[in-house]
Amino acid sequence: MSLKTKLPDPRSACPISGALDLLGDRWSLLIVRDMFLGATRYGDFAQSYEHIPTNILADRLNRLEGAGIIRSEPYQLHPRRYAYSLTPSGLRLKGVLGQLALWGHQHVAGTQMHPELREKLAK
Amino acid sequence: MSLKTKLPDPRSACPISGALDLLGDRWSLLIVRDMFLGATRYGDFAQSYEHIPTNILADRLNRLEGAGIIRSEPYQLHPRRYAYSLTPSGLRLKGVLGQLALWGHQHVAGTQMHPELREKLAK
Repeated sequence: MSLKTKLPDPRSACPISGALDLLGDRWSLLIVRDMFLGATRYGDFAQSYEHIPTNILADRLNRLEGAGIIRSEPYQLHPRRYAYSLTPSGLRLKGVLGQLALWGHQHVAGTQMHPELREKLAK
Repeated sequence: MSLKTKLPDPRSACPISGALDLLGDRWSLLIVRDMFLGATRYGDFAQSYEHIPTNILADRLNRLEGAGIIRSEPYQLHPRRYAYSLTPSGLRLKGVLGQLALWGHQHVAGTQMHPELREKLAK
């Protein structure tokens, strides 16, 4: 975790607002989704269908780690490279992802539930 | 709905990504939350604890309506004022809000589940 990572000031005591302070953007929950699907390394996330820009990916990994949702460990030292995984807090986002997937599948035209995603979210 | 409202291009066929294309920001789901709590008018949303900036509120109401999540009807003609309500698609976001509230309550320090929110999301 970068020492510069600073959690946002909470906007209110509402738990929905608190969750969105940390996760309310277009990308963070897609990174969490990819971790549920087995992604661990920077290159795994960068290769997803949605083509996350690399500067946003680096920022979101930092923020998610600062929020205690993911953790990183070096898997290579020269040059240093990190593998990312979900913390217990991150693993408990499965319900949020499951509800977003269900709603998106039912209400957003053109979406398809990938069998692997359905299986991971059902476990 | 403004004729200028344009839905974003989908980033992928993933239903989570599709949902976040429409709802992936810090404010949209707070507006939906407020509707579950009975808010209908511009002033109701502007008065929430999180103090949504009015330009963002106007933009998000427009986008949510363009996405079919809320609808508006004039309640006053001179000057014209609108009341907003959830469509069936918007009402089905209850599961997403419920999971975000649960996760936020358990994992974000300083949050408190307001009894009214708990009651509305449990119904």
